[in-house]
Amino acid sequence: MYFVGVDIGGTGVQAGIVDENGKILFRKECKTDVVGGFEKIMDDINILVRELLEENNIDIKEINSIGFGVPSFINKDGLVTCVNLGWSEVQFMGALKKRFEEVKIYAENDATVAALGEAKFGSMKDSNISVMYTLGTGVGGGIIINGKAFTGAHGMGSEIGHAIIGENYFDCNCGNNGCLETFCSATSIIKYAQKLISEGVESSILEKAENNIEDINAKMVFDSYRENDQVAVETITRFKSYLAKAMGSMINTLDPEVISIGGGVSRASDIILDNIEELIREHILYKKEDFAKIVCATLGADAGIIGAAFLN
Amino acid sequence: MYFVGVDIGGTGVQAGIVDENGKILFRKECKTDVVGGFEKIMDDINILVRELLEENNIDIKEINSIGFGVPSFINKDGLVTCVNLGWSEVQFMGALKKRFEEVKIYAENDATVAALGEAKFGSMKDSNISVMYTLGTGVGGGIIINGKAFTGAHGMGSEIGHAIIGENYFDCNCGNNGCLETFCSATSIIKYAQKLISEGVESSILEKAENNIEDINAKMVFDSYRENDQVAVETITRFKSYLAKAMGSMINTLDPEVISIGGGVSRASDIILDNIEELIREHILYKKEDFAKIVCATLGADAGIIGAAFLN
Repeated sequence: MYFVGVDIGGTGVQAGIVDENGKILFRKECKTDVVGGFEKIMDDINILVRELLEENNIDIKEINSIGFGVPSFINKDGLVTCVNLGWSEVQFMGALKKRFEEVKIYAENDATVAALGEAKFGSMKDSNISVMYTLGTGVGGGIIINGKAFTGAHGMGSEIGHAIIGENYFDCNCGNNGCLETFCSATSIIKYAQKLISEGVESSILEKAENNIEDINAKMVFDSYRENDQVAVETITRFKSYLAKAMGSMINTLDPEVISIGGGVSRASDIILDNIEELIREHILYKKEDFAKIVCATLGADAGIIGAAFLN
Repeated sequence: MYFVGVDIGGTGVQAGIVDENGKILFRKECKTDVVGGFEKIMDDINILVRELLEENNIDIKEINSIGFGVPSFINKDGLVTCVNLGWSEVQFMGALKKRFEEVKIYAENDATVAALGEAKFGSMKDSNISVMYTLGTGVGGGIIINGKAFTGAHGMGSEIGHAIIGENYFDCNCGNNGCLETFCSATSIIKYAQKLISEGVESSILEKAENNIEDINAKMVFDSYRENDQVAVETITRFKSYLAKAMGSMINTLDPEVISIGGGVSRASDIILDNIEELIREHILYKKEDFAKIVCATLGADAGIIGAAFLN
């Protein structure tokens, strides 16, 4: 039996045929034709999946299901609104069902899908209760309970980037103040380093950005942290202290077996994981007890295809 | 088939025989002999339950199970530490099993037990995913997933009073700053009203406490709120704004069907529920979607017996 996972992103669509061990056997991709509009993207996905199957001599009847990850929330009526894709309340689930009538289809938010991939075959394997934080431009999340993606009663759970954990000096894109996303995304790291530099603190980060403060990225901040640069140390220390607050609060709430950190920021896993358990322990109510193992994601971008393939 | 629930508190132990519809048929109580020590309390509970059964001509074989609620966390080895009861790492589960060998026994934290009672037969009835906040001296919580009490991988979940939601002007008893408990407990309401009064704001709350600021209680603050007293309005407005942040974050995380508010503070349910959904909506990521119904608990103190009876 094969499983198909499709990861729909703002620039490209990745499809993969996955075996029961979570191995991607074959893959194919196409561009996301945002200008062409919703129906065009849906048609392209249909062609992509069918070509992927044909080229590898696999009949759609040999497929258990096709799962889709989408960079948005899918509401209970199957509607999706996604600024990056130019979609406003499009009937996403309906459009998929029409094109893939002969097979079971499932779809979920991409961060939830990535968490499922990590829970099935990656950093959170063999755990029943696990949580993944995807730290990138924003902060996404996925909650796995009893081995399944958990998204709540109306499908809008697991948006843990918008749990409020403090007060911040700028508001979140969602309109609120204090969301985790404003403390622990790549964007928040860049913003805070820029803030300190603008306030006159000298930093090797600025050299890396060739003196153009707008060109600073999170990698430069982590690289300067390794050089003990003051701005970088302050920025990353703040980032980690809020990450520890968020994870401590999550442990006090859901007490998962494993918490995994994914997304672009997790490439600096050595810096993030260093001493993180001690920082988290400070925020845990039952300080003497064992708590969740903190790890970094291992499947990388493949988590999107693999997780989607195993939605059910 | 009967179910027995036992609610162990700092001053008394309440036991009840409950039918399958959640009705308490018979009840009996005894004092919690904190001075007598752990084994004495366990002996008293044994006598209490057996007398309750005998007096009502019910054989222990007719009992499905006995459940216990305890004002503490029970760790994975069955150990309990509870300052109120004078217990330090006592072998709670072992002591119960020794005394009730002939019947299945279960035990959980009392706030979790109350949530289960409300989910089975009270304010959160017929919901699969629900969350209860117990707002009293502290803030406890219970999370129900698929109709069962959810306490995580190590049994220390659902302590949602210690989720960090902001920065506060005093630290929590747990040692951290910003715990929900420091914004939304009865204690936090009293403290904030005292703070404003100490700063010189006139208030009818002080009259209610016969000019003794130490004697202010939460009921006085709610009563003065009804009279539009400035200190009370500021205090309750602040309390509700943080409650809305916590519940909005919970909806973004777990997206329950129902959130119920219990504990002593919930006696002012008209004030708490008034406009609360609009306040919460501000903190929800998907603002157009339906979200959890916000209600107040309906079983009162009986939730402790009823919920314990249905632990499994």
